[in-house]
Amino acid sequence: MGHAGNLGFVTPQRLKFDQTLPLRSGATLSDYELVYETYGELNAERNNAVLVCHALNASHHLAGHYEGKANSEGWWDNLIGPGKPLDTDRFFVIGVNNLGSCFGSTGPMHVNPASGQVYGADFPVVTVQDWVDAQARLLDALGITQLAAVLGGSLGGMQALDWSLRYPQRLRHCIAIATAPNLSAQNIAFNEVARRAIITDPDFHGGHYAQHNAIPKRGLRVARMIGHITYLSDDAMEAKFGRELRAAELSYSTQEIEFQIESYLRYQGDKFSEYFDANTYLLITRALDYFDPAREHGGDLSRAFASATCKFLLASFSTDWRFAPARSREIVKALLDNKLDVSYAEIDAPHGHDAFLLEDPRYHGVLRAYFLRIAGEFQ
Amino acid sequence: MGHAGNLGFVTPQRLKFDQTLPLRSGATLSDYELVYETYGELNAERNNAVLVCHALNASHHLAGHYEGKANSEGWWDNLIGPGKPLDTDRFFVIGVNNLGSCFGSTGPMHVNPASGQVYGADFPVVTVQDWVDAQARLLDALGITQLAAVLGGSLGGMQALDWSLRYPQRLRHCIAIATAPNLSAQNIAFNEVARRAIITDPDFHGGHYAQHNAIPKRGLRVARMIGHITYLSDDAMEAKFGRELRAAELSYSTQEIEFQIESYLRYQGDKFSEYFDANTYLLITRALDYFDPAREHGGDLSRAFASATCKFLLASFSTDWRFAPARSREIVKALLDNKLDVSYAEIDAPHGHDAFLLEDPRYHGVLRAYFLRIAGEFQ
Repeated sequence: MGHAGNLGFVTPQRLKFDQTLPLRSGATLSDYELVYETYGELNAERNNAVLVCHALNASHHLAGHYEGKANSEGWWDNLIGPGKPLDTDRFFVIGVNNLGSCFGSTGPMHVNPASGQVYGADFPVVTVQDWVDAQARLLDALGITQLAAVLGGSLGGMQALDWSLRYPQRLRHCIAIATAPNLSAQNIAFNEVARRAIITDPDFHGGHYAQHNAIPKRGLRVARMIGHITYLSDDAMEAKFGRELRAAELSYSTQEIEFQIESYLRYQGDKFSEYFDANTYLLITRALDYFDPAREHGGDLSRAFASATCKFLLASFSTDWRFAPARSREIVKALLDNKLDVSYAEIDAPHGHDAFLLEDPRYHGVLRAYFLRIAGEFQ
Repeated sequence: MGHAGNLGFVTPQRLKFDQTLPLRSGATLSDYELVYETYGELNAERNNAVLVCHALNASHHLAGHYEGKANSEGWWDNLIGPGKPLDTDRFFVIGVNNLGSCFGSTGPMHVNPASGQVYGADFPVVTVQDWVDAQARLLDALGITQLAAVLGGSLGGMQALDWSLRYPQRLRHCIAIATAPNLSAQNIAFNEVARRAIITDPDFHGGHYAQHNAIPKRGLRVARMIGHITYLSDDAMEAKFGRELRAAELSYSTQEIEFQIESYLRYQGDKFSEYFDANTYLLITRALDYFDPAREHGGDLSRAFASATCKFLLASFSTDWRFAPARSREIVKALLDNKLDVSYAEIDAPHGHDAFLLEDPRYHGVLRAYFLRIAGEFQ
């Protein structure tokens, strides 16, 4: 185990795709671009590549920094780098921004070639399967036939699972963290409230706010506040904020901040509304809602995984009430029903769903050991 | 146990109070009115009265119907009536609408005598203690020195607890259902998101929407949708809606309804926005946030209950994640620390926080038995 270091400066790349991409909705995308980053070196056998799929609020920028840009650390920098659990001295790591995002790949903020106008709400609905199909084409372009692993947490974990189901020959390991085989009614409910907050914001203009020089920031703020509550555990929120007041005394106001938790949530909402695109938020929460591999198999998740052949690592966190351990266990059961090779770690961590992004020693220990096992297969 | 019947037609009453009511915020209310209902007969000894305190979305109209008004059943009609667990053949039951409400008692929709304008956001912030003080004055006016019991669920339970702390000589029993000694950070967080949705609705106009002939319905809808998610258990929502689609096939839309749970939530939000006042919503959620009897005692709930002398019944529901059983147990512990007479029922029910309003046989059995015990003390 080498001394963990940082990647230093990294540079995003951009690839244009001319071949039309058929989408699950029946629509198609042509002339689209994907933005991606890679770290480490692809080996001569081209068998050390790891694809990392991102969740709602993330991107292709997994690790390292951008030159000349402060606070530009990648979102999974604690995991990925030289000597880190996903060791870029051993693996060629690929991060790709999904279609419909607002961080570089073709999305609703880009110009629709058919109309010459910004897509806005006209950007087609994209699903986890569509993202995975687009990722597969990127790998074709990079000359990678088979991945050592696909890794993802939360919505990223859904993409990793979809890879295992629909491209079984193209990955040897699927690593799905803090994820679920589909959203529960409660999960969908939270997404829907967030979407309604955005859609009913008068600045939303049916999703064509760009043409009105408007941004539905009110809706984005509320959406983000709801999201944050579901990312954190009740206990973590209690430990961090409890009933702590912002001032020494109560001010008895319904509109001003009284409690620190209110201040925190408003700050998170404000920050998010400054950089995240509202149509992207709608698209990504819908992709979450739609993911349900068992649906095409009469609701039988075990039958859905009959096509999978790779090995699996699943991990969940004890205090994650958004994608609770019980949801990961459903996946583990379906994999075992198919006599697949599966490792499962249920990690006792206080941080709720957010735990998958944090540097918990037991969690990172599990990932480090698993990636060493993978590396042992090709080194 | 007689055959349970209904109260039939009931009539609200209204009482005007001239004496100024000092509020916790330092403000005062003068010339206020309280709307209330009573069922059953006050006995000659005037010792069979039960006060029922309401939560967020309820009122003085506990039971029975209004003549000539369809669907006007009181919100706790399954519990209160002749032969029902709270038996109006034995008890004189009082429901009172709290100050700041939008159901009849003086609130933000009424005219501020100081300005001649509708109060709106100028209505003073009211707390659980203020409500209880106002309820005590109503009892004075009704000539009731000591209540047989105060009963409440959720925010109503907080009022019942406050009665036991600050008016110990005026009640013999405190019955607090599905409540908490204070809100957790997560509870406050949900309230704050709902408030932000309302306050940032352009139709809110700083709370003076009446003067703009506007109603912040968008914000009210989102607030109610958030509330509904927290009232139901994850399991109950899953059992009732799951991932059921509204149509036979997916329509692949971010803005239209796909899942039945979305339809349900939107319906609840729409309905609520038609009748509930936005300023009242802010006031009532703030009263919830502020309730914290331990605060004046260095956070020591046991010390807070040192002033209590009545007997207690507490009940909680296994799937209530808003006011979980652990919160009721905190209260039970504080009562036992003070060697008070306390009964506690933790009821295994699937309905989440909403269970306190439903007719669960074990739950109603507990209440029926407890009220029989109370009746046995004076009959």
